[in-house]
Amino acid sequence: MEYTTKQALAIPALAALLWQTAHAAPAAPAANPPKPTVADVVKASKPAEWRPLDPEHTLYMDLPAGRVVIELAPDFAPAHAANLRALARDRYFDGLAVLRSQDNYVAQWGDPDEKNPRAFKTAKAKLPGEFTVPMANDKHFTLLPDRDGYAAQVGHSNGFPSARDPKTGRAWLAHCYGMVGVGRDVDSDSANGSSLYAVTGHAPRHLDRNITVVGRVVSGMPLLSSLPRGTGALGFYEKPEQRTPIKSVRLAADVPEAERVKLEVMRTDSASFQAVAEAQRNRGGPWTKVPAGYIELCNVTIPVREIGK
Amino acid sequence: MEYTTKQALAIPALAALLWQTAHAAPAAPAANPPKPTVADVVKASKPAEWRPLDPEHTLYMDLPAGRVVIELAPDFAPAHAANLRALARDRYFDGLAVLRSQDNYVAQWGDPDEKNPRAFKTAKAKLPGEFTVPMANDKHFTLLPDRDGYAAQVGHSNGFPSARDPKTGRAWLAHCYGMVGVGRDVDSDSANGSSLYAVTGHAPRHLDRNITVVGRVVSGMPLLSSLPRGTGALGFYEKPEQRTPIKSVRLAADVPEAERVKLEVMRTDSASFQAVAEAQRNRGGPWTKVPAGYIELCNVTIPVREIGK
Repeated sequence: MEYTTKQALAIPALAALLWQTAHAAPAAPAANPPKPTVADVVKASKPAEWRPLDPEHTLYMDLPAGRVVIELAPDFAPAHAANLRALARDRYFDGLAVLRSQDNYVAQWGDPDEKNPRAFKTAKAKLPGEFTVPMANDKHFTLLPDRDGYAAQVGHSNGFPSARDPKTGRAWLAHCYGMVGVGRDVDSDSANGSSLYAVTGHAPRHLDRNITVVGRVVSGMPLLSSLPRGTGALGFYEKPEQRTPIKSVRLAADVPEAERVKLEVMRTDSASFQAVAEAQRNRGGPWTKVPAGYIELCNVTIPVREIGK
Repeated sequence: MEYTTKQALAIPALAALLWQTAHAAPAAPAANPPKPTVADVVKASKPAEWRPLDPEHTLYMDLPAGRVVIELAPDFAPAHAANLRALARDRYFDGLAVLRSQDNYVAQWGDPDEKNPRAFKTAKAKLPGEFTVPMANDKHFTLLPDRDGYAAQVGHSNGFPSARDPKTGRAWLAHCYGMVGVGRDVDSDSANGSSLYAVTGHAPRHLDRNITVVGRVVSGMPLLSSLPRGTGALGFYEKPEQRTPIKSVRLAADVPEAERVKLEVMRTDSASFQAVAEAQRNRGGPWTKVPAGYIELCNVTIPVREIGK
């Protein structure tokens, strides 16, 4: 939570656990008045300001260390989202691996065997690139008032950081931390979703509009971001045993109810989400001496929580 | 390198090794003409466009898995840089640990024992915050023409990403990936350099002007960024055995010549560095369909290489 995050650098290790009580104590008069934090906003949010993940558009990638939950973005990449559902139902990814971890960039997974690549079943082998979509397809866009260097407009679309250009009438997903993209070759239509990556570093926004972004990791990012970096070219692992095996990738809808992760995402067109952005744009309280008065798209927290917790 | 990075998402695992030869083959007519890449610019740069690290302002933090090299920024944090040199000479950090790894934020190290904190020798226990400095202190500023949301002006100062506000006449270092900051309590003068953090996620620029930034990790970031994330509050490790012990922190000048890492940094006021930024601002070649036409401060690569390699 940003509340704790903001304070984090102020807190010695053991004292961290005592922090909340310490904070409850009367503070000295602060130049910067207290303001609601992200944690405060989440706590005060209404149930209607959250939406559960749609099992038909949620993938579970199970790694030996745990589960990565990916929300698909059919509004922005309908063909790729459909192909990923097919690949999951074909159990295409089961037994494949995370092949690459490049520091401050991406972790990438897929088929390690280029000579004898795994055959497709029902999934399509070639898809048109879905780098941008008509703005009309993006029915949930909420503008972030803060300016952006990479796009005329940025904001959030139903839980995904996005951008748009009214001049061209196109919209696209932004390469923020945790976003999932589809590796491709030089040709725009050379991808099919069998090679995927998640952003693990500072947002590589130059990839926006150049590659299909198909979703976002809503849970389990540390399982990808803390992988050892590959020592080969581009962060590829040089030895097969350095790769992280993928136990399985399943569509949540195909997993028994009892084995699903029940998550809900704060609606990015809600009043509380606006308050989340403001809580990070201008932080209150005595620790912050100079509120930024601005927030960059990829710094906006998109709250996710377990339902009922 | 960005050259490979840019291509990375286009390249299957095994083919990555064959990429250079593949690239040498005649390419189909490209809508986006080839342009020099960062690798090309580095290769064509002149020796005078590089500067070796100053051993008097370089710290080696040796962890069990390897060495983290930190360049200090005395122009922006003279008192803290001096105190870190004293702490290193006092061998203050030897045997302490990385206490915290919070996903998409920071890794932080210092003294795990809050009850019986390690005593200081020659280092000062309290320093004034050095959150900003007069612009006049920043003699090497090179403006990045691209606009920034957090500051009136951004650019690079002798190898460090920095920002400034002509209205206030103040300059400061920016919290980009790999930058090293000084943990503090609520009071601005509550820090001394005994608790440090490195940015391991998307740049938390809201910290700019709120905390002393004392340097930058120029080598060894993966040793910090790939650490397991702590499961406690703020990413602190819950069990002592989860912490990464610090073997030693030494000033390079105090390490025998033969044991030093010989690194040089591209001068950020050089023509080649301008070309590095342009190579990332507008990428050439057939893979890139839409050059960004922009680069965000923390996306600009600051080339570092081993001298003579």
